[in-house]
Amino acid sequence: MDYYHLLKDVPEKEFLPGFHGKMIHLKGFTMAYWRIEAGSLLPEHSHVHEQVTSVVSGQLEMTIGGETKICDSGMVTTIPSNIVHSGKALTDCHVIDVFQPVREDYK
Amino acid sequence: MDYYHLLKDVPEKEFLPGFHGKMIHLKGFTMAYWRIEAGSLLPEHSHVHEQVTSVVSGQLEMTIGGETKICDSGMVTTIPSNIVHSGKALTDCHVIDVFQPVREDYK
Repeated sequence: MDYYHLLKDVPEKEFLPGFHGKMIHLKGFTMAYWRIEAGSLLPEHSHVHEQVTSVVSGQLEMTIGGETKICDSGMVTTIPSNIVHSGKALTDCHVIDVFQPVREDYK
Repeated sequence: MDYYHLLKDVPEKEFLPGFHGKMIHLKGFTMAYWRIEAGSLLPEHSHVHEQVTSVVSGQLEMTIGGETKICDSGMVTTIPSNIVHSGKALTDCHVIDVFQPVREDYK
């Protein structure tokens, strides 16, 4: 069983322009470790998965359910199922997302 | 609906000596934002919850299923249900844990 994962060895994929993600899937949820380039845009979307976004470094402007705030390492966002959200990287960012259940579309 | 959470406003509790945690519970999982003092020990334990540990800063020695490694911001650990694990903070650490399903015992 592989309990330990060096992030440098986890394959990185550009899922959207400027959004470079490393995915780790468990049975019940998916971890996404993002490196986001300044200026990159995440269009409005929604999904059945509950989501938490933790900004590790940088500034990410998020809009969730029509409410916009600037998120940094002092902020955590919780996104319920099917709530429309979008984002814009104001700087280069490192961000950790959690999705529950597993994001099969990210496999 | 409260989508945005300033970590400074989330109550912190010392769950074990030296392990200061801020919990955010969703429907399907729990986020734990830990500030751990150097030298603090997490005794061997297990739980039905799947867990991911992401070290944001510092060095955390972890033992999972009998295998010990030093974890830092370049490492992510995945702990399946019911696998015995323990830890020791080699330095002051900031760590993010995810537990699925919700940690009712942390409410």
